[in-house]
Amino acid sequence: MNQVILLNKRPVGKPVLSDFRFSNESIPTPQVGEILLMTLYVSVDPYLRGRMNDTRSYVPSFELNEPIQSGIIAEVKDSNHPEFKKGDFVSGNLYWKEYQISNGQGINKINASVSELSSYLGVLGMTGLTAYLGLTEVGKPLPGETIAVSGAAGAVGSIVGQIGKIMGCNVVGITGTDEKVELLRSRFSFDDAINYKTTPDLTKAIEKVCPKGVDIYFDNVGGEISDAVLANINKYARLPVCGAISLYNETKTSVGPRIQPIILTKSAIMRGFFVSDFSKKFPEATKQLAGWLKDGKIRYAETIVEGFNNIPQAFLDLFEGKNKGKMIVKTNMQ
Amino acid sequence: MNQVILLNKRPVGKPVLSDFRFSNESIPTPQVGEILLMTLYVSVDPYLRGRMNDTRSYVPSFELNEPIQSGIIAEVKDSNHPEFKKGDFVSGNLYWKEYQISNGQGINKINASVSELSSYLGVLGMTGLTAYLGLTEVGKPLPGETIAVSGAAGAVGSIVGQIGKIMGCNVVGITGTDEKVELLRSRFSFDDAINYKTTPDLTKAIEKVCPKGVDIYFDNVGGEISDAVLANINKYARLPVCGAISLYNETKTSVGPRIQPIILTKSAIMRGFFVSDFSKKFPEATKQLAGWLKDGKIRYAETIVEGFNNIPQAFLDLFEGKNKGKMIVKTNMQ
Repeated sequence: MNQVILLNKRPVGKPVLSDFRFSNESIPTPQVGEILLMTLYVSVDPYLRGRMNDTRSYVPSFELNEPIQSGIIAEVKDSNHPEFKKGDFVSGNLYWKEYQISNGQGINKINASVSELSSYLGVLGMTGLTAYLGLTEVGKPLPGETIAVSGAAGAVGSIVGQIGKIMGCNVVGITGTDEKVELLRSRFSFDDAINYKTTPDLTKAIEKVCPKGVDIYFDNVGGEISDAVLANINKYARLPVCGAISLYNETKTSVGPRIQPIILTKSAIMRGFFVSDFSKKFPEATKQLAGWLKDGKIRYAETIVEGFNNIPQAFLDLFEGKNKGKMIVKTNMQ
Repeated sequence: MNQVILLNKRPVGKPVLSDFRFSNESIPTPQVGEILLMTLYVSVDPYLRGRMNDTRSYVPSFELNEPIQSGIIAEVKDSNHPEFKKGDFVSGNLYWKEYQISNGQGINKINASVSELSSYLGVLGMTGLTAYLGLTEVGKPLPGETIAVSGAAGAVGSIVGQIGKIMGCNVVGITGTDEKVELLRSRFSFDDAINYKTTPDLTKAIEKVCPKGVDIYFDNVGGEISDAVLANINKYARLPVCGAISLYNETKTSVGPRIQPIILTKSAIMRGFFVSDFSKKFPEATKQLAGWLKDGKIRYAETIVEGFNNIPQAFLDLFEGKNKGKMIVKTNMQ
C-alpha cells in the first residue's frame, strides 16, 4: 500500500490534525522517462502554513483534497530514466506520499557519503541556503557588527548565528526555552541568548546583551519579539524578514507599533525575501555551506520524528517550538 | 534691531505658537574671515518637528532657548571673507535670525540668474534632492512601473511624481484636498490622484487607480494612508520612507497593522533615508534637476508666506497641509 496525506480542510488559526487526511493509493509503476521514489525523510517547515491558506502568498496555495508538498529525501526504487538508477538518493519538492513517480524534473541526486541524507533538507538544503543567502545578501554583515536572530534555535536561525560568528560578528539569539538558550551558547557559539518567554522586559534585555545596538536583525518570527529588537537597532541597520511564525496562525491582522518612524530615523533597510529570490546563488552557497560543515565550522541540530504517520503532528509541533534545529520526519521505510 | 526666533518649549503633540519665542539681538559685525548675512527666504519643513523633541533622531535636537535652524537663502551684507563679497546670495543651514555672522563653512553661493532664489530651498535644494535621490537610489524605478506618492502635493512629493513621469512610470498621488488633486493632475502631470480625506475606502481606491499594483511607494506621511498603499504592493516592491508627517505630532506610539507579513510575502524592500545619506551624489543630482527645470520638464510650486514674524505660523501650517509645494517664508528684508 501507499499512504498519502491530503489537505482535508484549510486551517483556521492554528492547524489541527483533522486539517489533514490519510488516503491510500496503489504503488505506481514508472513509465519510460520516469522513476519510482520511496520517501525517506520529510521536511516540515513553518512556511507551509501559508500555502494552506486560500490567499495569494509567495508560493501557490495547496489544493483541498490534494497531497501536501514539501522538501523530501527519497530513494530511487525503480528507474526508467537514463539519469537515475535504482538505489540513488535524491532530494526535491515532493508529495507527502510513501511512494511517488517523478520525471526527474526538479529532482537532484545527493551524495550520502558527503553528509547525512537528512542534512540535505536542512543545512545543505533549503534552510541552510535561506540562512546563508538571507544573511549575506540582505543582512550584509561586517566584522564587529551585532546580529540579533529570532527563532534562533530553529533550522534557519541556528545556522544564521554560526555564519555570523564566522564573519566576525557578535551574535545574540532569541528563543523560547532555557534549554535552547543553553544550546545556542554552547553548541552554536552564539555570544549570548535570551529566553523571551521568561524575560519580563525584552526591549531592555536586548539592550543589555547588545550594548552597541543591533546592526542586523534576522527576523524569523515577527510580532512582539520583533518590536523589542527594532527598538534597539542602529543607524543603517539591515532587517532581513525571513519568516513571521508568530503571525502565521492569526485569524485577523495583527496590530503593533508602527515601524516606519524607526525605519526612517535609522535609515534602516527592511527586506522580505524567500530563498528562491536568490536561486542563482544556490551553487555557490551550497559549496560554501558544505565546506564549513566539512571543516567543523558549522554544526546543525535536527529534531527527528519517526514514522510517515507522524508528519502532520510534526508540522503542528513547529508552532509550539518543539523542534531544536531542523524538524524532520524519518519514515523508516526500507 | 535683529529679531531671532528661539525654541521656547518642546512641543507636546501638535506644535503651537507659544513653543517659539522672539528675542532681539544687536546686528553683529563680521571679523576677519567672517561675513554678515541678511535672511531673505526661510525654509520650513516637517522634519524640523523631530528636532524639537528631546529624543535622538537622525539629526541632533534643537536646544531650548536657542535659535532654530533651517535652510535659508541670505544676502551677504558685509564681508571680511576672501570668497564672499557684498551682494552675493548664499544658501545654508542657518539660524532663524534676521542677521547673522558666518565663517562661510557649509555656505554655498547661488546664482540668481539661473533660477529664482527661493528655488534653492526647494527644487534645487534639499527637497528636490530628497525627491530625486530617494526615488532613484531607493525606489529604482523602471519604465512601465507604477509609483504611488503620499504627501504628493508637497515640496518633495510633487517633484517625485514628475521625475517618475520622466522615467516612464505611471504615477499616482495621494493628497488632502480636491484643489491639490487637480494640481497634481494638471500642473505636475500625475496620471491620477486621490483625495484621502474624501475617499471612504482608500485601499480600494488605490487598487482602482493602480490596476497593475504598486511597484514603488514613496512614503512622506506614514499612518493609515501607508497601510492602504501597502495592501496594494507588488512582488519586489520598493518602499522609500522619506517622512511620516502624520505621526510626527503623536504623543504615544502609533499602532497599526503589522507590515512584516506583507514585506515578507512580497519580497519587498522598505528603506528609510535622509537626504544626507546620499550627499556624495548631490552635485550630479543638482545638475540633473537644474537641467530638467531649464528644459521645462519639471515644474515646482511654492507657498510663500511673507514676513520674518510669520515663520512659526508657516511651520505650524505644514501640519494642516496648507502648503502647495514648498512652504517658504520671504522676510521682505532689504
